[in-house]
Parts: sequence; C-alpha cells; structure tokens
Amino acid sequence: MSTESHYRHHVFFCGNRRPPGERTCCADKGADRVRDYAKRRVKALGLAGVGGVRINQAGCLDRCEEGPCIVVYPEAVWYTYVDEDDIDDIVEQHLQKGQIVERLRLKD
Amino acid sequence: MSTESHYRHHVFFCGNRRPPGERTCCADKGADRVRDYAKRRVKALGLAGVGGVRINQAGCLDRCEEGPCIVVYPEAVWYTYVDEDDIDDIVEQHLQKGQIVERLRLKD
Repeated sequence: MSTESHYRHHVFFCGNRRPPGERTCCADKGADRVRDYAKRRVKALGLAGVGGVRINQAGCLDRCEEGPCIVVYPEAVWYTYVDEDDIDDIVEQHLQKGQIVERLRLKD
Repeated sequence: MSTESHYRHHVFFCGNRRPPGERTCCADKGADRVRDYAKRRVKALGLAGVGGVRINQAGCLDRCEEGPCIVVYPEAVWYTYVDEDDIDDIVEQHLQKGQIVERLRLKD
C-alpha cells in the first residue's frame, strides 16, 4: 500500500522479559546486549537514520520458542541470532547489501 | 524480499518516555493507554495472531514531534492519533479492511 518507507530497514528486537520459571524469553538470551551492539554497528557504518536503518526495541514478538528473534521491515524477514557475530552478518549482508542471511532466517 | 508476512499487519506503538522538560514523547500523549485499547479491540474482533494482526510496544520510533505515532508493517504506513476514536478508525478501516486512513497518516 506504500511505495516508500520512512526507514529503508526498520529492525525490531524482541526484548521481552518473563519471570523465572515461565515460558522462555528473548531477554534471557542476551537481547538487550545484542540490540545495543546492533545500534552501535549501524551508527558506526553510517546506516542509521531516515531513509536508512532504524534499530528498535519491541515488546514480545510472540515467537519466544524460536528466539531470540528480530524482524526486519518492510521486507518482513525474521531472524534468530546467537551473538554479536550473527548480528555482524545481518548488518553487513542484509542491512548494507539487501541480501537475506538464510542461515539465520526464521520461516514465516 | 518476502512474499508472506508472519503477521498480516504488525503494528508498533512508540512508547518512549522522556524526562520532564526534555523533547516531547509519545508516552506523555497517552501511548500506553491507547496501545492497550488497540490490543483489546484487535482481540475482540478476532484479528489477533499469526496471519492476522499483532500490536506491539516499541522504543522510540524517532518521529517525536509528529507523535504520538504508530507504524503498520509490512506496508510501512505511519499514523498519528489523538485518542481511542482514532484507533477505532485504524482498526476497522486499515487492519480489518486494508484501507489506509488518510486523515491520520504521517507522510514518509
């Protein structure tokens, strides 16, 4: 319905935190630390801002058992990640070059 | 890059809160209350879930002066709103029928 996107890639990190003993959550898997890293990398590479990339925290994206997870819009590509190395791949391949990182992708 | 979206409409409410005296923020304009209302409406209408609608809180979407704001993906349509009546229009026209509510739309 829209041909232009305010952000070329808008990335949402699930940052949901559940009490101990409940269903698994992304916050327990390093989401905050990795999101901060992603923000720093995107800024350092000059990708941040309108027409570029925006990294955001989000509430529960409800793919908890597949997480930690992120979603990149408007292309609606979902990823999981383990650590900063995975984020490097997503930033350099997807956010810089527009190529999906298939090894980290979650199926729709 | 993707033909299917996990959620047909994924709605992010900016919920950023700044200290008093700083730049304006969406939290000061009822974002939390209105987001909760949107979640209830979407559930009540049977729209919530995979293949349907997801309402999420997000960190600062960085359109503070135009806010309070939301963005609907994958179509990348941005809205502002004043109150629950505006959300009713967005839910019933956009999320149910796929029609953009032009009077509330923010330009890209």
